[in-house]
Amino acid sequence: VLATPLGPGPEFDRIRAIAEALGADAPGLGDDCALLEVGGRWLALSIDAAVEGVHFRRDWLTLEEIGWRAAAGGLSDLAAVGAEPAGALVALTVPRSSPPGQEVALMRGVAAACRTVGGQVLGGDLTGGDGLVVTVSVVGWAERPLRRRGARPGDGVWVTGTLGARAALAAWSAGRAPLPGSRAAFARPEPRIAAGRWLAGAGATAMIDLSDGLAGDAAHLASAGGVGLEIELERLPLGAGVAEEAAAAGEPAPAFAARGGEDYELLVTLPPGGPPGGSPAPLTRIGTVVPGSGARLTLDGRPLALRSFDHFA
Amino acid sequence: VLATPLGPGPEFDRIRAIAEALGADAPGLGDDCALLEVGGRWLALSIDAAVEGVHFRRDWLTLEEIGWRAAAGGLSDLAAVGAEPAGALVALTVPRSSPPGQEVALMRGVAAACRTVGGQVLGGDLTGGDGLVVTVSVVGWAERPLRRRGARPGDGVWVTGTLGARAALAAWSAGRAPLPGSRAAFARPEPRIAAGRWLAGAGATAMIDLSDGLAGDAAHLASAGGVGLEIELERLPLGAGVAEEAAAAGEPAPAFAARGGEDYELLVTLPPGGPPGGSPAPLTRIGTVVPGSGARLTLDGRPLALRSFDHFA
Repeated sequence: VLATPLGPGPEFDRIRAIAEALGADAPGLGDDCALLEVGGRWLALSIDAAVEGVHFRRDWLTLEEIGWRAAAGGLSDLAAVGAEPAGALVALTVPRSSPPGQEVALMRGVAAACRTVGGQVLGGDLTGGDGLVVTVSVVGWAERPLRRRGARPGDGVWVTGTLGARAALAAWSAGRAPLPGSRAAFARPEPRIAAGRWLAGAGATAMIDLSDGLAGDAAHLASAGGVGLEIELERLPLGAGVAEEAAAAGEPAPAFAARGGEDYELLVTLPPGGPPGGSPAPLTRIGTVVPGSGARLTLDGRPLALRSFDHFA
Repeated sequence: VLATPLGPGPEFDRIRAIAEALGADAPGLGDDCALLEVGGRWLALSIDAAVEGVHFRRDWLTLEEIGWRAAAGGLSDLAAVGAEPAGALVALTVPRSSPPGQEVALMRGVAAACRTVGGQVLGGDLTGGDGLVVTVSVVGWAERPLRRRGARPGDGVWVTGTLGARAALAAWSAGRAPLPGSRAAFARPEPRIAAGRWLAGAGATAMIDLSDGLAGDAAHLASAGGVGLEIELERLPLGAGVAEEAAAAGEPAPAFAARGGEDYELLVTLPPGGPPGGSPAPLTRIGTVVPGSGARLTLDGRPLALRSFDHFA
């Protein structure tokens, strides 16, 4: 059984089956990071694979951007528990025939993402294979880690930054070049380390990062806390190019953004009074925690059934 | 520049190029584990990818065995620095069409390998992809970590257990079933955690695990320590089926074993007096540390030029 219950979906059914089979051999699954108490602090650990053809394509991003994004995905998990990064270990699988400069370019991107948040490349592994796989395992420290569980009815639901980095993907998929702002948001997401730590100290009750997409991640936060989340999509802060790509897709822009799995922003619950001043990242209130279960998404008062990306849907 | 110099080979040239490009962003590369000092102890971390078609084939091993071997590879890195495992994080990439039971079987194998050495499955990541990739990131603690550097001229060179688990691979590759003993050595290697910790406390001067194969790993130990290693291959303790498979390959059995990259034993240097009694694993002296550089392998007095497995050779 998962220590932290997850929301619905075939991908999460598979993770539930693993947790059930492993039992006491895996007692802590389901949160953004594994957390181990060490001398009064918490060691935070997470692992994420980025697979060519699934998470990225080489004709869309440079190798440095692929490395940056892979590292940012792991660092975003540290942000989601309010941890400060120590660094990352990276397992690279590259085609045996690839020129040696490729892994150097990838690792420059990984290292640059780590450096911007005070982390280092701690170690790695290099193997030959068919396609490119970049697996990043991050390590950090938290004084008072936040988790997915902990939201209470009456809390406000907030997000950092802006959503909709999948606008770039939608453009590429349609054979168009993304708008510059939307390309940048996709290629070089900035992990919300400073905001995560600040929120952990500012009374936040639960937190998750938005790597699966708001619709799915809000459901995880609801399941973890044994509460419901009501989210008013018209409040969503939208990033560059989202309005244009949503229009091209014939979809309301907030729905387009909420289905996306390419944002590395934080979804956080805060007591009714809201956050104190001084947040290092923009914070927008998008909803409320209620008694019940699941995430209920509305657009101008009408419920919308949205699904986030699911690897096995 | 690598903090711990590696031996020769195209795979290690690529790692040298990464270390050079990253400079101060990756100051500690080249040992079996990354080591971070935390309150008087050392946190030991390592990451290893096991890729279908490169590290394993599904018609050779069960999914549980594939999971076990992947975890054992990482745990063996902890053994090589004398660390005690806390556990492992696992990134699984599985074909999107695969039945859900597959990743459960894989993770049962990972969990079983961790359990035998007191570790747990701490976290993970599940993504859809084309082939199967199991990436294991291990975490452990060492009171007094051993490293690859530290061997001194006059030290003896020793190995734990027996070598030659690649006998099973040779049989499969030739279309034969491996002998049961040789299959077991390949499918369920036991990470030498107890031996690694014991050796770290017994005066060992340097240590590495034999996952690349004795020929290559002895060269790493020599480069790391700025010394030479003289190894008498006729002293090698050989595992089940090695004599038979070496004969089939028309190769002297010790040379066959020394080229192999499938053993998870430890290569360790000890002061001239050798180890005290009470080792939890068999220890065999196979050579001597000398002034100079590189690993010199001889069989009955004649030098043999052997290469270990190299992903990019």
